[in-house]
Amino acid sequence: MLNQLLTDIRAFLDERVHPMEREFLNTPFITIKPKLELLRAEVKARGLWAPHLPTALGGRALSLTAFGQVSALLGESPIGHYLFNCQAPDIGNTELLHMHGSPEQQAQWMIPLANGDIRSCFAMTEPEFAGSNPIHMATTAVRDGNDYVINGHKWFSSSAENSAFTIVMAVTDADAAPHKRASQIIAPMDTPGLTLVRNISVMGEPGTDYASHAELRFVNVRVPITNRIGAEGDGFALAQERLGPGRIHHCMRWIGICERSFHLMCAYAVKRELNPGEPLALQQAVQHWIAECRAEIDAAKLLVLDTAAQMDAHGAHAARERVSLIKFHVAGVLLKVLDRAIQVHGAYGMTDDTPLAYWYRHERGARIYDGPDEVHKTSVARRILKGYGLTRS
Amino acid sequence: MLNQLLTDIRAFLDERVHPMEREFLNTPFITIKPKLELLRAEVKARGLWAPHLPTALGGRALSLTAFGQVSALLGESPIGHYLFNCQAPDIGNTELLHMHGSPEQQAQWMIPLANGDIRSCFAMTEPEFAGSNPIHMATTAVRDGNDYVINGHKWFSSSAENSAFTIVMAVTDADAAPHKRASQIIAPMDTPGLTLVRNISVMGEPGTDYASHAELRFVNVRVPITNRIGAEGDGFALAQERLGPGRIHHCMRWIGICERSFHLMCAYAVKRELNPGEPLALQQAVQHWIAECRAEIDAAKLLVLDTAAQMDAHGAHAARERVSLIKFHVAGVLLKVLDRAIQVHGAYGMTDDTPLAYWYRHERGARIYDGPDEVHKTSVARRILKGYGLTRS
Amino acid sequence: MLNQLLTDIRAFLDERVHPMEREFLNTPFITIKPKLELLRAEVKARGLWAPHLPTALGGRALSLTAFGQVSALLGESPIGHYLFNCQAPDIGNTELLHMHGSPEQQAQWMIPLANGDIRSCFAMTEPEFAGSNPIHMATTAVRDGNDYVINGHKWFSSSAENSAFTIVMAVTDADAAPHKRASQIIAPMDTPGLTLVRNISVMGEPGTDYASHAELRFVNVRVPITNRIGAEGDGFALAQERLGPGRIHHCMRWIGICERSFHLMCAYAVKRELNPGEPLALQQAVQHWIAECRAEIDAAKLLVLDTAAQMDAHGAHAARERVSLIKFHVAGVLLKVLDRAIQVHGAYGMTDDTPLAYWYRHERGARIYDGPDEVHKTSVARRILKGYGLTRS
Amino acid sequence: MLNQLLTDIRAFLDERVHPMEREFLNTPFITIKPKLELLRAEVKARGLWAPHLPTALGGRALSLTAFGQVSALLGESPIGHYLFNCQAPDIGNTELLHMHGSPEQQAQWMIPLANGDIRSCFAMTEPEFAGSNPIHMATTAVRDGNDYVINGHKWFSSSAENSAFTIVMAVTDADAAPHKRASQIIAPMDTPGLTLVRNISVMGEPGTDYASHAELRFVNVRVPITNRIGAEGDGFALAQERLGPGRIHHCMRWIGICERSFHLMCAYAVKRELNPGEPLALQQAVQHWIAECRAEIDAAKLLVLDTAAQMDAHGAHAARERVSLIKFHVAGVLLKVLDRAIQVHGAYGMTDDTPLAYWYRHERGARIYDGPDEVHKTSVARRILKGYGLTRS
Repeated sequence: MLNQLLTDIRAFLDERVHPMEREFLNTPFITIKPKLELLRAEVKARGLWAPHLPTALGGRALSLTAFGQVSALLGESPIGHYLFNCQAPDIGNTELLHMHGSPEQQAQWMIPLANGDIRSCFAMTEPEFAGSNPIHMATTAVRDGNDYVINGHKWFSSSAENSAFTIVMAVTDADAAPHKRASQIIAPMDTPGLTLVRNISVMGEPGTDYASHAELRFVNVRVPITNRIGAEGDGFALAQERLGPGRIHHCMRWIGICERSFHLMCAYAVKRELNPGEPLALQQAVQHWIAECRAEIDAAKLLVLDTAAQMDAHGAHAARERVSLIKFHVAGVLLKVLDRAIQVHGAYGMTDDTPLAYWYRHERGARIYDGPDEVHKTSVARRILKGYGLTRS
Repeated sequence: MLNQLLTDIRAFLDERVHPMEREFLNTPFITIKPKLELLRAEVKARGLWAPHLPTALGGRALSLTAFGQVSALLGESPIGHYLFNCQAPDIGNTELLHMHGSPEQQAQWMIPLANGDIRSCFAMTEPEFAGSNPIHMATTAVRDGNDYVINGHKWFSSSAENSAFTIVMAVTDADAAPHKRASQIIAPMDTPGLTLVRNISVMGEPGTDYASHAELRFVNVRVPITNRIGAEGDGFALAQERLGPGRIHHCMRWIGICERSFHLMCAYAVKRELNPGEPLALQQAVQHWIAECRAEIDAAKLLVLDTAAQMDAHGAHAARERVSLIKFHVAGVLLKVLDRAIQVHGAYGMTDDTPLAYWYRHERGARIYDGPDEVHKTSVARRILKGYGLTRS
Repeated sequence: MLNQLLTDIRAFLDERVHPMEREFLNTPFITIKPKLELLRAEVKARGLWAPHLPTALGGRALSLTAFGQVSALLGESPIGHYLFNCQAPDIGNTELLHMHGSPEQQAQWMIPLANGDIRSCFAMTEPEFAGSNPIHMATTAVRDGNDYVINGHKWFSSSAENSAFTIVMAVTDADAAPHKRASQIIAPMDTPGLTLVRNISVMGEPGTDYASHAELRFVNVRVPITNRIGAEGDGFALAQERLGPGRIHHCMRWIGICERSFHLMCAYAVKRELNPGEPLALQQAVQHWIAECRAEIDAAKLLVLDTAAQMDAHGAHAARERVSLIKFHVAGVLLKVLDRAIQVHGAYGMTDDTPLAYWYRHERGARIYDGPDEVHKTSVARRILKGYGLTRS
Repeated sequence: MLNQLLTDIRAFLDERVHPMEREFLNTPFITIKPKLELLRAEVKARGLWAPHLPTALGGRALSLTAFGQVSALLGESPIGHYLFNCQAPDIGNTELLHMHGSPEQQAQWMIPLANGDIRSCFAMTEPEFAGSNPIHMATTAVRDGNDYVINGHKWFSSSAENSAFTIVMAVTDADAAPHKRASQIIAPMDTPGLTLVRNISVMGEPGTDYASHAELRFVNVRVPITNRIGAEGDGFALAQERLGPGRIHHCMRWIGICERSFHLMCAYAVKRELNPGEPLALQQAVQHWIAECRAEIDAAKLLVLDTAAQMDAHGAHAARERVSLIKFHVAGVLLKVLDRAIQVHGAYGMTDDTPLAYWYRHERGARIYDGPDEVHKTSVARRILKGYGLTRS
């Protein structure tokens, strides 16, 4: 059944998606959005929509291991996840609401998300504090009657523009233990006092709509207390919980990018000639890159799938160490593969005629967003060394 | 005297240039151009204009070693070379016309270039052929009376938009020995039949004016034979000749980018706190990157300056091996330093608030343009191995 | 059942093997051999002997995947494989005779090998020819009545000293197609004309007995034609056949070395103090190495096991590409892990008090023996690129 | 004059030294020592002896920059420095006594060292403490009348066997400030209570005589107070002082190893054939290694020479940052070059027929001895970051 799904998705990518990527890469998101919406409708019509979702929400209730393989496939196109409604941060927000949302929250926000009728964002990182240490934040949500009044400054809220709502992380009890201080609260984007200051120009592009990263200001933003997700002080615990599956999604998406880049590299190497009848593919340097990339992609993919299988079998907590490992390991493989694929393409690899340059600049963030490599390495090592008797940190 | 010049240039960069870089990074070139022109006027007024030029052309006739140090300094800003009229490809075109241009060519094209009144471009690479092997090209210039009639297709003609003229490499005798087939010919950009097809979108930006890379078409472009530079068939020899000094310019510009990135990395590491009172600079990973970058930048800089000194003393030919070595070696150091500087900056390093992201994406071309690393490595090795008795290649 | 076996082996390693490794590392093999023989007897007595062998030969008929896990465990000690009679090249010779030996060959040579009563070696590489291209060899076996008369020069015949016999690769038909020229022939080491010229000094050690690499000369060495294994001209095909499982064995042994080195590194990092109360384990550089090693070992192990599973399911031929991939990929991980483990140990890591220095110098050969990395990379890439239409090589 | 010296040394290396290296590599030092002594006599006879020494001591009073070039040349042979009496630790001990020894110490110990009549060692590192933090040591020298009574445990005292004396670092005032606690004291090796416990087996070799690393025990070792070098408590200051020039010596010796390895790699690549008429030198992978090595060696060499020039001009203190930089940078280049040279040699590179395997295993210590890379990187970075306002460490 999974194999059939993968076959159907690949067919759709080949027929309908890959042929329009070059246009996508050279057009603002907001401009090309109507075309994308038609494709999304087609995905639904083919019964391929959001297969990670429970069946009640229109999905196929795939295990993490199974969805990982879907995610790798969607990752082969820069618009794959969006077209199948598997895109971050909506996928995480939907899952969060499914696990911890009230019936009202689910009805109002989760169902439209699952249907792709609205989009959402997540507001956690603050410019004044290092994102790698999320304990520190200045945004507060103060109770006032039946409301929270939120004040604060966030950035790198991806896809905020034209979102229906954001989930904002705010301190609800500054005196609690560090990991119990914050809560996650739904704030409709049109709430008075909530301003999208700018789409941050990232790697040369401020972007638009879904393809953007916003700076947000909250000035006395008032929302009902019932907009809080879970209990007060659960903010970090909920954030932690979404990370596990989120990492699998990201890592498998990166594997997909690797596979596509590998494919483009091989195809171009065979086609492009240095001299008449002498393709690039005969260069030993190119051959060795191809062999090394193949080994690293295969090994990385097995590592992620094995981690997903551990999570499916024993839960995210049991796989904590691995979840950190795959983050930095796969990000490293991703950037190496992209770099080599570009080098094989030469000047053509610098252009926006292929998705390589798009991934090269935007996926540089893979080693930064969601905790920089260095934080993950340190945390993995500490956990391992504790097993050897390390008592300090 | 050189030290005074360097001091004066640094003062100008600090006062007038660095403060406007963020605006530059977030504004199309064509829009910010008027401001840049004012700064260029100021450079002239301060007597710092184009110090590489002969004194007769308004420069200071610096040796390659001396200009290398100027170039490193200018490289610390993404607009440094442009503001001082030291920007490629004009610097190379000016030098070419100075060495090989006829008096008429010099009067018409070189003088205005040296004064910064016009800009120019260079049309060599063709999309149908690997740039790494410039022998193959399809563009032809056929004599017809006192004219050449040029037909062909070029791309990656940097800065073509709004240039006054291009120097185009075209086959003038297809039956000659491979390196004697082509000539370099001046074609005013407004010549009928010469079309700028598009500014190629590179790393997300089609760019404008000076900051662009064009695709050009030549359809029966007719120019007088007197527009040829040097003798017929000298095209490759002239191209080769410009490469030597050009590499020193590029490499020292890259050293400048390294120095600035190093500076930004150190300053940010000290300023940015992970926890109150605990700056990033205390992280051992960051410290080790800084130490390694310092060593690699210093070593690379000495290598380039030593090569420049060899060229000043014995000519470009004597330093051929080194000229290839520095190309790939410094490009490698550059990309490593940039990558680490971004990592230290975290998400901020992905934004266009600093020049790091700009350099990260555009200087990826350092390993590709002007001969990819692999071509240079192979050619250096062959030369070395010939000394050990290698007879084939 | 496999888990029980692994548990039993680990217990034996912990109780009896690891404690005597330091003595092993500081004693010539021939001197410590009697102690090793006692341990081998103990392995037999515990019923753990050579589990890869068919049950009829006293083993457990493990699948490749299962034996891979045993091999990784044995690899944690520099004498693990030898003690369990799983050591190369005997393991390969036994398997070869099991698959292709005549009943007489099996009775005379295979049974004593399986019992550990004798040892054997393999004579393939010749000093005059690059080992990476085994087609070229000068050793000949010429029929003379019912005998072959063998003449030639071999080296890197590992473990030849005190072997009962060698299997020698010799040209039996110089006019055949390149891969049909050679045959594999059993030559007892005491055959007149067969001389062990020297044990080659490798990384400072000529070595003795099992722990040695010999140079052999064959001068009119006469053996009966019935000593040939398989059909005449099958030499390469048989060599190819042994490579598949052999790579799994090697790679899993390397994984075992990685695991042990990782363990030593973590334990030492926690124990060794830079200042009172401040163990090395608190250094971020050490932490990051540990995290990176963990990720790379896990990924590499999964890659090898997946390859073994492919071979168990579909045969060695189906897994050809992967078999080349794991060779160079795991060798690279191995040397990186060893290098870091030594660095953490400081000067202590240079000594022969731990097995790290032993592995560091002898496993450098992992990237060379059995086909250098570069050959494997090229061959993998060509196979992949053929799938993209590459027709030349 | 320097050029003539270099020419003379190279001639001696070519004629007399390189031809006997293979014998050296396969013979215990103590056995081959008589031959080496004859060569040392020849060096003296040719007037090439110890050119770093002041003329009064028989040398040529070379600047650090000039001697650096000599050292690089001597480094091309594993016995170069020994034959010219430029070997560590004698070179450092001689210099120390020259700068800080009393006239009696100079007469008794320095003159014979300079003449090559005796050898010496240095006893600093202790097995119980991390060598990377030399403040911590347990060896004490307690005054008793006109004597010091020394008790302690040292290891990695290189070349102790058959040395005439050691200079031992011992705590003379445990209550002083950390860097004022220790003194350097001369202890003749035949002093009662001073025992050479063992030559530590390093990378498979306990070694002999000069080529060894000893573990020493001091039990009530009594020496006159006049054996102290410099003032009491100056131990660290003197140790620090010797480090500067010592690093230049080491780094230039490593450059010499790089040059020789590069030479061997190129020569072998041209000679060794993969197929008839197709040398290894045609492999692109080999070509790229050669090009990369050439660039890295050249850059590293310029960095060391520039550092030496800084020290010659402004003293060791002024070049402190650079002195740390070159230590880890050149060590890294060295090990990379060695690794590649071995890979090009294949199995032959693993043997002791060339010096590559000797250097590969013993120069692994380059990243450890004399302060591991990590310590140097941290200390350089802290110094740099202090310039950016870092106040903690």
